Amino acid sequence: MHSLPFADRLCQRIQQTGSVACVGLDPRANFLPESLQPAEKGDPRQWARAFERFCIEIIDVVADKVPVVKPQAAFFEQLGPVGMQGLFNVIQHATGKGLLVIVDGKRNDIGSTAQAYAQAYLGRGSGSPWGSDALTVSPYLGSDSLEPFLQQCETVGAGIFVLVKTSNPGGGLLQDRQTENETVYQAVARLVEGFNEGRCGLFGYGPVGAVVGATYPDQLAKLRALMPRTIILIPGFGAQGGAAADVAAGFDASGLGAIVNNSRNLIFAYRRPEFSSRFGDLRWQDAVAAATDQMNQQLRQVLTD
Amino acid sequence: MHSLPFADRLCQRIQQTGSVACVGLDPRANFLPESLQPAEKGDPRQWARAFERFCIEIIDVVADKVPVVKPQAAFFEQLGPVGMQGLFNVIQHATGKGLLVIVDGKRNDIGSTAQAYAQAYLGRGSGSPWGSDALTVSPYLGSDSLEPFLQQCETVGAGIFVLVKTSNPGGGLLQDRQTENETVYQAVARLVEGFNEGRCGLFGYGPVGAVVGATYPDQLAKLRALMPRTIILIPGFGAQGGAAADVAAGFDASGLGAIVNNSRNLIFAYRRPEFSSRFGDLRWQDAVAAATDQMNQQLRQVLTD
Repeated sequence: MHSLPFADRLCQRIQQTGSVACVGLDPRANFLPESLQPAEKGDPRQWARAFERFCIEIIDVVADKVPVVKPQAAFFEQLGPVGMQGLFNVIQHATGKGLLVIVDGKRNDIGSTAQAYAQAYLGRGSGSPWGSDALTVSPYLGSDSLEPFLQQCETVGAGIFVLVKTSNPGGGLLQDRQTENETVYQAVARLVEGFNEGRCGLFGYGPVGAVVGATYPDQLAKLRALMPRTIILIPGFGAQGGAAADVAAGFDASGLGAIVNNSRNLIFAYRRPEFSSRFGDLRWQDAVAAATDQMNQQLRQVLTD
Repeated sequence: MHSLPFADRLCQRIQQTGSVACVGLDPRANFLPESLQPAEKGDPRQWARAFERFCIEIIDVVADKVPVVKPQAAFFEQLGPVGMQGLFNVIQHATGKGLLVIVDGKRNDIGSTAQAYAQAYLGRGSGSPWGSDALTVSPYLGSDSLEPFLQQCETVGAGIFVLVKTSNPGGGLLQDRQTENETVYQAVARLVEGFNEGRCGLFGYGPVGAVVGATYPDQLAKLRALMPRTIILIPGFGAQGGAAADVAAGFDASGLGAIVNNSRNLIFAYRRPEFSSRFGDLRWQDAVAAATDQMNQQLRQVLTD
């Protein structure tokens, strides 16, 4: 149990590390370094151990470089129950290293089922079996589906990140629809911001964050203005095409209020031409370190301009 | 691996059992019969065993009475990794008994992450680690987030149920928004129906189903008309207030095209006044049987009227 709410802990970690980067832990079987590939390719237990070791080694590399990591639940779920044990071990290792952990599960349901998800994932050291600091959540089920999460956030000092405007090309189908005076995603943004009213901490941010893709810089700027109390999680940096300049609009004047996620380009940096020649497959961890430093530097440059 | 697609297997099971009911497996700790309550209330392993035993006993009672069960992932996730092993065991037991299994996970993500969820949950006997027949899926991320699921459905003969119009009071916040000539939920319904075009099986239904709450009978009738190739999963029957007459509009002229979920009022029937006096806590399984028979009878009456 933490005395400080999630938003404050995140802002403090950002100031301590001098980084607004979030490392996405997306263990994809076909990208895993050769040295971690299991001997028995058909054995989910061996894959789960490989995923776990991969993520734990990344955590050891980035623990002092970034404030937060974001394990992607889907890749662990893909291995069945043994994969979920791996996810648990990864969360434990990350929190033990002082990192904040956002589980990317895009969960939600109605009423008491939403409460079950909230109690499952939110609140390190609070009796939550997964013990993470925050969870990504889908808004399709409306405001009453988000309230049990909000309640749990307040009880255990945790956070959620609600999908507002996603980075994929097809996201606009629902999110960009014009309704009355606003789009669907703007309506979600207003809802999210409303939840933070009267719930802001030391840095002026509340427990309910928003996911806004880096692939739409103009919308990011407008959403920053629409949600002044909301921490924005910006995915789509790197592999999905977003660049450092594109995310600048997500931050407040103090360089807070947002975190920028990068998964593939950091954790599989050894596969990028610029790093593969220097490090190769055997020193894949050094490639993670170099790519993380590079991303931090790019973001610092843009945020101090 | 099944030679028949999910929609056909479901329609066949409906005809074999003479039932359109889906039993929702929502193991809630505080409602569990006394005999199943664990000795150590703080031990998630004991709770996981209790949840598993509870669900397995229900499955044994309803296996010949209904076509399909729907375990709610959240309640298993709430117990951490040991809970997920319980979910796996429950799915295995249900498919072993000939039941179809819809995992209620309301999952989704973009691109290759959606593919990971699809491969995780869809396709009994196909190498899918959870091995269920279908999964509930959230549409907020748009059409490209649904395509990997559709692809997996076609490959392994599985199904998905996309949230269209949910049964909770707050669901309207996004879903009922008027956009251009339709509401958001109607736009999702059109998307779902479009996926089934050219993909229908022996009974005229495709792999992509829709979740439409029983609490809005008028909308259900309109959605049935808008989605003639789409199997509708109707939650909200029983505890959430929907009655047999309210769901009739979800079916086609042959009494197919929809399944009606009931969780609490069936699995915790021993707590309902009408059954508690007859069976009590010790014969809670008999209460499940009686409540399931009652629901089947109510639905048959309405569907043959």
